[in-house]
Amino acid sequence: MRSTQVSGLLTDLYQFTMLQGYLESHMDEVAVYEFFVRKLPPRRNFLVAAGLESVLDYLLTVRFAPDEIRFLEKTGRFNRRFLDYLENFSFSGDVYAMPEGRVFFPDEPILRITAPILEAQLIETRIINLLHYQTLVASKAARVVLAAPNRLLVDFGLRRAHGAEAALLGARAAFIAGFHGSSNVLAEHLFGIPSYGTMAHSFIQAHDDEAAAFEHFAHAQPGNVVLLIDTYDTEAAAEKVVRLAPRLKAAGIAIRAVRIDSGDLADHAKKVRRILDAGGLKDTGIFASGNLDEYEIQRLLAQDAPITGFGVGTRMLTSSDAPYLDCAYKLMEYAGHARRKRSEGKATWPGRKQVYRTYDGEGRMAGDTLCLDSEGYTGEPLLQMVMKEGKRTAHLPGLAEARKLCAQDLLRLPEALKSLDGAPPYPVTVSRGLKEMAAAVDEHRA
Amino acid sequence: MRSTQVSGLLTDLYQFTMLQGYLESHMDEVAVYEFFVRKLPPRRNFLVAAGLESVLDYLLTVRFAPDEIRFLEKTGRFNRRFLDYLENFSFSGDVYAMPEGRVFFPDEPILRITAPILEAQLIETRIINLLHYQTLVASKAARVVLAAPNRLLVDFGLRRAHGAEAALLGARAAFIAGFHGSSNVLAEHLFGIPSYGTMAHSFIQAHDDEAAAFEHFAHAQPGNVVLLIDTYDTEAAAEKVVRLAPRLKAAGIAIRAVRIDSGDLADHAKKVRRILDAGGLKDTGIFASGNLDEYEIQRLLAQDAPITGFGVGTRMLTSSDAPYLDCAYKLMEYAGHARRKRSEGKATWPGRKQVYRTYDGEGRMAGDTLCLDSEGYTGEPLLQMVMKEGKRTAHLPGLAEARKLCAQDLLRLPEALKSLDGAPPYPVTVSRGLKEMAAAVDEHRA
Repeated sequence: MRSTQVSGLLTDLYQFTMLQGYLESHMDEVAVYEFFVRKLPPRRNFLVAAGLESVLDYLLTVRFAPDEIRFLEKTGRFNRRFLDYLENFSFSGDVYAMPEGRVFFPDEPILRITAPILEAQLIETRIINLLHYQTLVASKAARVVLAAPNRLLVDFGLRRAHGAEAALLGARAAFIAGFHGSSNVLAEHLFGIPSYGTMAHSFIQAHDDEAAAFEHFAHAQPGNVVLLIDTYDTEAAAEKVVRLAPRLKAAGIAIRAVRIDSGDLADHAKKVRRILDAGGLKDTGIFASGNLDEYEIQRLLAQDAPITGFGVGTRMLTSSDAPYLDCAYKLMEYAGHARRKRSEGKATWPGRKQVYRTYDGEGRMAGDTLCLDSEGYTGEPLLQMVMKEGKRTAHLPGLAEARKLCAQDLLRLPEALKSLDGAPPYPVTVSRGLKEMAAAVDEHRA
Repeated sequence: MRSTQVSGLLTDLYQFTMLQGYLESHMDEVAVYEFFVRKLPPRRNFLVAAGLESVLDYLLTVRFAPDEIRFLEKTGRFNRRFLDYLENFSFSGDVYAMPEGRVFFPDEPILRITAPILEAQLIETRIINLLHYQTLVASKAARVVLAAPNRLLVDFGLRRAHGAEAALLGARAAFIAGFHGSSNVLAEHLFGIPSYGTMAHSFIQAHDDEAAAFEHFAHAQPGNVVLLIDTYDTEAAAEKVVRLAPRLKAAGIAIRAVRIDSGDLADHAKKVRRILDAGGLKDTGIFASGNLDEYEIQRLLAQDAPITGFGVGTRMLTSSDAPYLDCAYKLMEYAGHARRKRSEGKATWPGRKQVYRTYDGEGRMAGDTLCLDSEGYTGEPLLQMVMKEGKRTAHLPGLAEARKLCAQDLLRLPEALKSLDGAPPYPVTVSRGLKEMAAAVDEHRA
């Protein structure tokens, strides 16, 4: 996954200053860190884990090149011992994680790192950067999937995603959540995500005649004829499509769909459907795009808009109604002792943890337990070992498998949690062992 | 600027299908496209142009590698003529643009591309992707700068920015807008943006004793002593800092600042200021962070919180109150004829345009005119030629110069527009020539 292989310098300066501090103090015992989300954004009922694959790729490849070491040296901030440490750096720790595509809830770790504290600390920034964004988008996209059953869903977010990597990893996260593909060609090249797309308004505008533009396009892309009909007058363009269809049919070309990108999409879709049906184009779909998200799609489908597919872009890849998650990567244990942050409003559960999930008789998720790894509850343990001493331990689910895991978990979600509005929270119980440990840590500190 | 050199495949599939259509129809006359923002997000009064440098870098370097051509060939969607075109692709057009750091308003183009339509179309997606995000963040960061006069402002957004490129280009955009630096080390390596940072809570937690953690850190980073004091009890930690100071002073180490990252920041800052002052640490600053944005900073300073610097992260690099701009890259002219999109709610002004700005007697911005490039108004023309036939034409302002341009424009903003809330819109007049051309284009189409 080339896109995530960025320089080891993509980190917060404080990681380096802290590392130099640890080295000076000869502190390099084993530390345990966990990544979790503190609370759900408004109107969200669950989250979908994504980003693990790129995290593992990062852990396997993160290094510091000679020119990067020289750059750090020149800043004058670092001593030789620290620079030598970086020069020889590679990650040697263990990783437990929830597979991509799994549904999870606040306070539940989806990643646990066990490594000498210098290593575990150094990787913090990029781990958060990767897990946060992909989980954010997968969680948003899953809502779109729930809002649009049996519709074709295509990610159109590349142009207004926040940079190249967001566009790529966002396309991948949306695919895990159940999208069928993306407009992003590089996402197909790198991840095998099917790419979709036909024409922009400029293609119509560059021609003197809209019907001529349609015909040129159909002959250039005979297997992929989706015609954009809203450049001038949507219904008039639908009539042109009907008039063009017999000539294309004679050449063996079918019009797969028309696309509408502006105006009242439900109203246009209904009118266009009638025009296409009357013109014998019952098999031609109607694809809608333009400022869509789960709320707008729900509204359109509630109006019985005859739309067969949706292009969902900006609002999904920016997760515009909740553009970030309150998440953290926190120290849980150092040198065998549990640790806990107690800053106001930001207290964490200490120790190395596991999450167990139980299901009811119909296979629906019935409740999770957050407990110490050493406790061993009943139910399905959600965190699995995925890396040992810096090497992958198991065949990890590929992209297709992650997509299936997500579809399965969405099916098993309690019905109330599938709502686009806030529902009563899913039950996550904190184990007795964990509560006792938190109290013990506080007492030790007090 | 390595970060922006991504594969030419980072584009929407429809660019390729359209190009094949143009090639089939032998359409490759000169086209003019412009990038502009349609309207301001809520509560915004102006925008700051950013991203041009990375756009020019992209135009100079975009190519298609042999393995990428083979990938496209294998999809079965494209013919040999199109693949040959891509294989030999390089950008040969002209570019006019507003320099980075300039303030601008809706409907004003900040970039104009003149090139054969195949080239001008192919680059659309990445141009929007680059200009949109950087302009979004520069515009957000400028508001933070206006809210926090004479305070140290540091970008802390890397971990929750949407991916690696957002973090990098966001740090750069914030710097243009007036930030002093970033926590992002790679941004210093690539762009020369000063990096800032000292320690996380985990550094304190990993030590058995908070005061020992402070002392270890000070000796490891004697020139950069900023101590994080909110891990357990903020005021108690400030007392520890006071007790530690004489010992450090004896070793020649000064405590530059303390950092508070949680709780009621104004209240803590006042109490901590009193503790530090009473302890003789009048020169030790108070740096605040944690969910900050321009609104929160304005609120803190209105309460006279004695805070000398702010770390602003997630909410700035995700532009969380307005995570995207309604922007477009549109065809304005093809083969010498003006073009115009008329889709509902998305109509554009046709033709190749220029923007002229006038100033009042005190040097304040008094109004802009959006006109045809051929009209030649009075005032300061904002679009300049920056590339001719695929080559850079002029020394472009570097990062430091862009930062100065932005500071100058923020000074020249009408006072009402500096508010964090919506103000009456800045006057942008559409020239008579432009209105006549729009009417003529509509008549031709009607």
